Amino acid sequence: MTERSMMRVLGGERIDPPPVWIMRQAGRYLPEYRQIRAQAKDFLDFCYTPALAVEAVMQPLRRFDLDAGILFSDILVLPDALGRKVWFVEGEGPRLEPLLDQDTWTFGDPDRVVGFLAPVYETVERIRAAMPAETTLIGFAGGPWTVATYMIQGEGGDKDRCRRATYQRPGDVAALLSVLVEATARHLAAQVAAGADCLQIFESWSEGLPEPLFEEVILKPTKALMARLRALGVTVPVIGFPRGAGALLGRYARETGVTALGVDTQTPAGFARAQAPEGMPLQGNFDPQMLICGGAAMEAEARRVIEDFRGSPHIFNLGHGITPQTPPENLAALVQVIKTGG
Amino acid sequence: MTERSMMRVLGGERIDPPPVWIMRQAGRYLPEYRQIRAQAKDFLDFCYTPALAVEAVMQPLRRFDLDAGILFSDILVLPDALGRKVWFVEGEGPRLEPLLDQDTWTFGDPDRVVGFLAPVYETVERIRAAMPAETTLIGFAGGPWTVATYMIQGEGGDKDRCRRATYQRPGDVAALLSVLVEATARHLAAQVAAGADCLQIFESWSEGLPEPLFEEVILKPTKALMARLRALGVTVPVIGFPRGAGALLGRYARETGVTALGVDTQTPAGFARAQAPEGMPLQGNFDPQMLICGGAAMEAEARRVIEDFRGSPHIFNLGHGITPQTPPENLAALVQVIKTGG
Repeated sequence: MTERSMMRVLGGERIDPPPVWIMRQAGRYLPEYRQIRAQAKDFLDFCYTPALAVEAVMQPLRRFDLDAGILFSDILVLPDALGRKVWFVEGEGPRLEPLLDQDTWTFGDPDRVVGFLAPVYETVERIRAAMPAETTLIGFAGGPWTVATYMIQGEGGDKDRCRRATYQRPGDVAALLSVLVEATARHLAAQVAAGADCLQIFESWSEGLPEPLFEEVILKPTKALMARLRALGVTVPVIGFPRGAGALLGRYARETGVTALGVDTQTPAGFARAQAPEGMPLQGNFDPQMLICGGAAMEAEARRVIEDFRGSPHIFNLGHGITPQTPPENLAALVQVIKTGG
Repeated sequence: MTERSMMRVLGGERIDPPPVWIMRQAGRYLPEYRQIRAQAKDFLDFCYTPALAVEAVMQPLRRFDLDAGILFSDILVLPDALGRKVWFVEGEGPRLEPLLDQDTWTFGDPDRVVGFLAPVYETVERIRAAMPAETTLIGFAGGPWTVATYMIQGEGGDKDRCRRATYQRPGDVAALLSVLVEATARHLAAQVAAGADCLQIFESWSEGLPEPLFEEVILKPTKALMARLRALGVTVPVIGFPRGAGALLGRYARETGVTALGVDTQTPAGFARAQAPEGMPLQGNFDPQMLICGGAAMEAEARRVIEDFRGSPHIFNLGHGITPQTPPENLAALVQVIKTGG
């Protein structure tokens, strides 16, 4: 591992071979993860138990030559901290009481978030202490719109109802986004105070929005979030990852204030580079389905991705999270190819 | 209605107000459609009964001032014609016996398609006779990859398994796409011979593909399809609609040979224009969720979309099909705004 190579790339330097981490690298594809997961009574309990969360972060770092660890948590700890009931249905995903069912939208004060999420910041501190100094520690949160969609419709999946809500109740949605911006800024600032070296904003539901709506629910809130973060004294690099933004990726890269760009599987590096501000570090975009398949085709594709990103400071990652059915040995082989070219 | 205005726009002319038709304009949002739908024993029977299919096409033309009618059929008549069992589960969507379950992929000869689908071409003839001469008749088929995904995994939805199949069985997938190119070319040529004025290729599952895969399964087959169509003597305009192509939309517009471009809801007109060959007619891209909501916001958004497309020959349409819960009076109001500006 090159010392602090991910931070150097986030500072604008190109490094060969590129630093690498993997979205959801602490996850169900690892048998040792499934073992500790079984010790928590539910997924949020897992996130709020520092001993377990720290162990989850450390597991992939022991197996693979990765340049970064990411806080083990969930984007939905924020609605939980705002007093919205959140639970996880095994094999299906998260559930919340949908705001759509309510005439008046209410949620707790952003002031309570940092107190409520104290175990998360304790986890960050403990990870920093447990991790080698040269390994980058990434803090994260969901993008305001992505978190809002779960709060609005109560689950993931099809976002049509959220778009309609935004057309029919624009004031309520704007108020929700505004609360999320403030809460997210404080949550991210607290992670940095606890030891996070850099941050990632997962705007996982960026697709399918007409441009004016993308402006309202993605660009403006993210810009406000970045401004608020900076006002809170946070100076670390921030990777924005608007998955599925497609034609609108450039506006996100240029207008929000994020300092690096997550690139999804479909988006070629050359396109992202042309759309983003000059020299912006790019992160991505290997297909997680290819990682499941493995073999020589996977290794060739890894080399292609590295070549594709050669014109930018590049952090190797997937274009989406690693899936539970991925054989861990495929990730070992992928990291080997990245680090050695063979 | 301006005489043959849609054909003039497809020929490269800009017309104000733009011609308009609506994807799935013959559909479940119309009570009269639900009435005739109930007369067929199943959805394919509906598609293969010319009297019913013609009536479905004519229904929206009686209600709304639309410039085009589209053949009432389904993209899955093609696998049906190739001997793959296709059925529709009420409220869920289409089902096929997945190729993924089979060691050897077999399908009927493309030669049989035109004979098998004779009722579809009879429908085209009857629509042409029933429709006013100034109304454009659109024939269509699914894009080869989109049809292939249904055949591979046996249903719609998440396409991860199809991506893996393409990585793991590239020869089988290439053979399937090749059969679909030939079958689709013949199917489209037969529609034109029966009276279709122009064609649309629905590549509805264009999203999420890494660029090399997009080349293999979308660009090359579509280019081959266009070449085969031209070789069969088909000279009419062809609208390609690669929904979700995002950053790769430009390559589709420039490299496949389609003559007009369907633009999805997320993609701004200016982006499509910049990426497409100079002067290419664009079709799109009003949000169907906004059409469900209706009202003054919908009318303002319609005016914005028209403005957004002002620099190109433009056919007004949605960015995705109209949904069953849309109040028909909203579509009436939308067409009124498009045609009169108010």
